[in-house]
Amino acid sequence: MSGLVLHNYFRSSTSYRVRIALAMKGLPYEYVAHHLRHGGHRKASYLSINPQGLVPALVLEDGTMLAQSMAILEYLEETHPKPPLLPTDPKGRARVRMLSDMIACDIHPVNNLRVLNALRSRYGADDTEIANWFRHWVNETFAPLEQMLAHDRQTGTFCHGHTPGMADICLVAQVANNARFNVDMTPYPTIGRIRDACMELPAFIDAAPQKQPDAE
Amino acid sequence: MSGLVLHNYFRSSTSYRVRIALAMKGLPYEYVAHHLRHGGHRKASYLSINPQGLVPALVLEDGTMLAQSMAILEYLEETHPKPPLLPTDPKGRARVRMLSDMIACDIHPVNNLRVLNALRSRYGADDTEIANWFRHWVNETFAPLEQMLAHDRQTGTFCHGHTPGMADICLVAQVANNARFNVDMTPYPTIGRIRDACMELPAFIDAAPQKQPDAE
Repeated sequence: MSGLVLHNYFRSSTSYRVRIALAMKGLPYEYVAHHLRHGGHRKASYLSINPQGLVPALVLEDGTMLAQSMAILEYLEETHPKPPLLPTDPKGRARVRMLSDMIACDIHPVNNLRVLNALRSRYGADDTEIANWFRHWVNETFAPLEQMLAHDRQTGTFCHGHTPGMADICLVAQVANNARFNVDMTPYPTIGRIRDACMELPAFIDAAPQKQPDAE
Repeated sequence: MSGLVLHNYFRSSTSYRVRIALAMKGLPYEYVAHHLRHGGHRKASYLSINPQGLVPALVLEDGTMLAQSMAILEYLEETHPKPPLLPTDPKGRARVRMLSDMIACDIHPVNNLRVLNALRSRYGADDTEIANWFRHWVNETFAPLEQMLAHDRQTGTFCHGHTPGMADICLVAQVANNARFNVDMTPYPTIGRIRDACMELPAFIDAAPQKQPDAE
């Protein structure tokens, strides 16, 4: 597989997930930046690629467009199994997907830029209210996530054992996002420890927002 | 596999997804109802099962708790491959997961009961505003979803070919939810056609909210 094109945005945490996975799998790609704040993803030229107009979208060399970061991660895992993002046993795989989706379904979508913009335009939410909203939903899920990670012997250096995988990818991207809204990480020592372990790995370091060509 | 316990709520569309999948796979289960509107999912007895306090949660006969509906669907698919919820080719699987996650990540979480409640309590949103919010996010995703389904020859009787699968499960559960907020389905003939095809199948009929023991 070559000729991959990743449509993304440096600050998008779903884009960050895909960048980490591509780096872990050792897959090179062309980086195409879409500036979400300036509406670049709503241009007709991009809508003709991804009708949803969101990032990330991964275009394969045959032109197939794959959107939705979690679907892209599953695709990369199926087509490039090594190193694995999921364990081999079904219950372990379910646990990793559960931990991943706690972030991917219960935190990120509610705190997405377009939702925060809707709170501003519909309800006149100011920066303080936006930050409170963001932190509320992070805390609602990080509290049980911390508990589930801290009290399960399946947790190791990383979310599941001693190799990084799908849940770690989601965790790192979310923690990076949290920093922009000053989320207090003190109540989440296990999450913080796993994040720090990931950030020693080249795939996580190189995929970080501030390392991307469109970083501000 | 027997002795499955499904913690759920008749009206929860994520619970509905899991009920359809269990029915398609022919797996019996014990139905335990948690009334979300009355906070039944926040009781200590349930938090000791699922620390996140959300439904659905599937408890396996060995006591393993699986939460997050999409992770549960993947687990059921891996452990009971027939009938399949996903096609066999990686690109087809990615397409089905993409269509599924458009609903599971971009519609449902933003329109979840707890988010609607937060709009009421934080911003004083009334019933009209709540309905507008709900419809806005459905339309934001249903418009490109309709386009992607209508203009792709991989779409058949169902979202992907002529057998129902993961994306159809998400679609049907979302359309059921939409009805509560009077979403106009006129602009979405392909989504409506697929929904109608699903609702001729026993697994989809039997899993419907109004057929559940806690239905009101």
